[in-house]
Amino acid sequence: MTSMTLAARRDRALGTGAPLFYNEPLHIVRGDGVYLFDADGRRYVDMYNNVPCVGHANPHVVDAMARQQGTLNVHSRYLHEGIVAFAERLTKLHPRGIESVVFTCSGTEANEVALRIARFATGKRGIVCTNATYHGNSEAVGKLTRLGTEPSAGGDVRAIPFPEMLRPIVPGASEADIRDAYLDRLRDAIGGFERDGVGFAGLIVCSIFANEGLPDVPSGFMTRAAEMVRAAGGVVIADEVQAGYCRTGRWWGYEVTGFTPDIVVTGKPMGNGLPLAATAASKALVDGFRERTRYFNTFASSPLQAAVGMAVLDVIERDGLRENAGTVGAALKAALAQRKGRSASIGDVRGQGLFIGIEIVKDGGAPDRERAIDVVNRLKDKGFLTSNAGAFGNIVKIRPPLVFAQRHAEAFLHAFDATIDEINGQG
Amino acid sequence: MTSMTLAARRDRALGTGAPLFYNEPLHIVRGDGVYLFDADGRRYVDMYNNVPCVGHANPHVVDAMARQQGTLNVHSRYLHEGIVAFAERLTKLHPRGIESVVFTCSGTEANEVALRIARFATGKRGIVCTNATYHGNSEAVGKLTRLGTEPSAGGDVRAIPFPEMLRPIVPGASEADIRDAYLDRLRDAIGGFERDGVGFAGLIVCSIFANEGLPDVPSGFMTRAAEMVRAAGGVVIADEVQAGYCRTGRWWGYEVTGFTPDIVVTGKPMGNGLPLAATAASKALVDGFRERTRYFNTFASSPLQAAVGMAVLDVIERDGLRENAGTVGAALKAALAQRKGRSASIGDVRGQGLFIGIEIVKDGGAPDRERAIDVVNRLKDKGFLTSNAGAFGNIVKIRPPLVFAQRHAEAFLHAFDATIDEINGQG
Repeated sequence: MTSMTLAARRDRALGTGAPLFYNEPLHIVRGDGVYLFDADGRRYVDMYNNVPCVGHANPHVVDAMARQQGTLNVHSRYLHEGIVAFAERLTKLHPRGIESVVFTCSGTEANEVALRIARFATGKRGIVCTNATYHGNSEAVGKLTRLGTEPSAGGDVRAIPFPEMLRPIVPGASEADIRDAYLDRLRDAIGGFERDGVGFAGLIVCSIFANEGLPDVPSGFMTRAAEMVRAAGGVVIADEVQAGYCRTGRWWGYEVTGFTPDIVVTGKPMGNGLPLAATAASKALVDGFRERTRYFNTFASSPLQAAVGMAVLDVIERDGLRENAGTVGAALKAALAQRKGRSASIGDVRGQGLFIGIEIVKDGGAPDRERAIDVVNRLKDKGFLTSNAGAFGNIVKIRPPLVFAQRHAEAFLHAFDATIDEINGQG
Repeated sequence: MTSMTLAARRDRALGTGAPLFYNEPLHIVRGDGVYLFDADGRRYVDMYNNVPCVGHANPHVVDAMARQQGTLNVHSRYLHEGIVAFAERLTKLHPRGIESVVFTCSGTEANEVALRIARFATGKRGIVCTNATYHGNSEAVGKLTRLGTEPSAGGDVRAIPFPEMLRPIVPGASEADIRDAYLDRLRDAIGGFERDGVGFAGLIVCSIFANEGLPDVPSGFMTRAAEMVRAAGGVVIADEVQAGYCRTGRWWGYEVTGFTPDIVVTGKPMGNGLPLAATAASKALVDGFRERTRYFNTFASSPLQAAVGMAVLDVIERDGLRENAGTVGAALKAALAQRKGRSASIGDVRGQGLFIGIEIVKDGGAPDRERAIDVVNRLKDKGFLTSNAGAFGNIVKIRPPLVFAQRHAEAFLHAFDATIDEINGQG
């Protein structure tokens, strides 16, 4: 009843269509570690939220936030040690070529900066992305979302099919041939820009193709794609907003798919909920951008962002959360993979670390978005929060805070088995 | 020595060209109310920062921030009472037609949303802005920055000269003729879009033309401009990022220049340093945007933004900061205006409330940017932080936290007089 009234107020105050999860939306009032609690006191295991990576209401982060806001929080045109130290610490987490950082408030802003860096550095406009991706919601970055792969002559964005082994563009071919087929599409897109006169600026990908549905990528694809991009004079942008920050059990998604980016974009988990994102690159690339734009961002590069960002890194390192993501995630993925035989609905189990996708399919293997949504809602009713995602919307997406532990995985498997039994019972 | 080393580290970590204020940059380590303190313990009166509007390190805000981050901070796809209540409170501060809010993390993002709302609502692309403005740093919003006023056939942005009485486009004419001359330029820009086939979507202005240098606007200009925009089928966007939130002694800048906007954009002071911005409009306009975009912003519309945003409004209302801005600002402006005769360098004193511009000019009245920068640096050395701004960079910009009191104004006038004496002594 309360929720109904609140939903009606929300409809007016935020407008109709402000997105809500689940068939019956949740009214969440409190968080603690991996748990979220609704207004009726019901507890849920959060298996969706990567932003509160060190856990909801993490006290070390709360303390750092309150201390810094109570000391100083001001814009970046004064010298401040904190933000410099945070930038230094971030760059040390990457290979040597990543030297300088532009801080922003959101992944959208950080991807805007990345595209501008690539275009300034090359003097060209053409950006290649994949065809079922999402990099943000501004006009320029939004152009990268869910494009068709047909050439769009004269445009400054071209999409190629995302690389995958399950439904490859050359079905039945060997892995090497599949890889080469995707590389051919990249080569064609680059060539198209050159023929158009738009010119080629670079490639942007989520390093693990998260929105595409965490596909198994043909071995060697990203390594060779990065080589091809550089040989054509472009720069390689790794969008690590979802892939990075230990999500996969490694620090960065590009370690999983095996390439070295020129520009790295990070966001969501950096501030455990404080708006904080970053674009990192070589000093030469960042200098070129700063020289042309004198870029300034009112709320970014602030003492508050630095203090909170440092606190998040502290907890990740102190509590071994990268290792936890690797260990717990691998065990959960293996346990889920064992369940493939139990239901024809489980088409595939993919992912790395604490980022796992369960592909829900119809008889015959076609994506089944409706059933995935059903599974997500049934899991919610059992106290486990996931969502559906992927190019076809048929992936049950598991992406909990990094403090998700073995016992939570075991409880989830129980609920998942019950859900699958229900679905099998339905026929 | 510490600052030198820090500056060198900053140059590498953030890239060369990350903006810094003052000839000798300040190393600020602490804030308290209107005061900032450097690493040597030196105290400055902050007369620049509008973001910490209720004062640096305001304890009510710190407390609200820590309490909410320690309770729940999660994305907006669950129901949450706080963000709905905050949106409701915001809309009540505007005339009846402003009903629904889209929250974002920065003014840039909020202006992106405003432009997209205008373009969706009209089905047209053409946006008119002024020629010495700034609305943000994304690719789409950045196109509005410092355009020439020559028609750019086919483009989707056209600039008109910002309206002003000091250096009007028809020198020596009556105020009504000056107003009409600027209105003619708006009419021409709208007509240009129609002739191009681009079509006219709307007008975006800072309601008090802050970046242009706080000009005295010909009486009735904005009222008639808004009428003209609507008659042509466009929407009126008020960028209140600098103008709003009691800065002028009124809640909104559009009250000062006398128009009713269709879309209101707010930002900087909303969160006292927490990244928080908003685009507000009629429910119909917001619904149309949400329907087309399913807009989602990871960090925005969050319980943390709501709690901190509410705390800022609490303090503004509890401590009478709107009235304070009006009273202290009017007295300071009057005192500064009295000083015009003391130095030929003081060309004009303009503004409203706690947003005042002192125009620094050469003999004969031409803008003197170099001398304005000199004044700003001399004031800094005396413990008062301002900056230079305006279309010609020759305005000493005074925009302190709203807790700036009469005693700070008196201390500043002392320092200002001494600075003017030094300048007069130089000849």
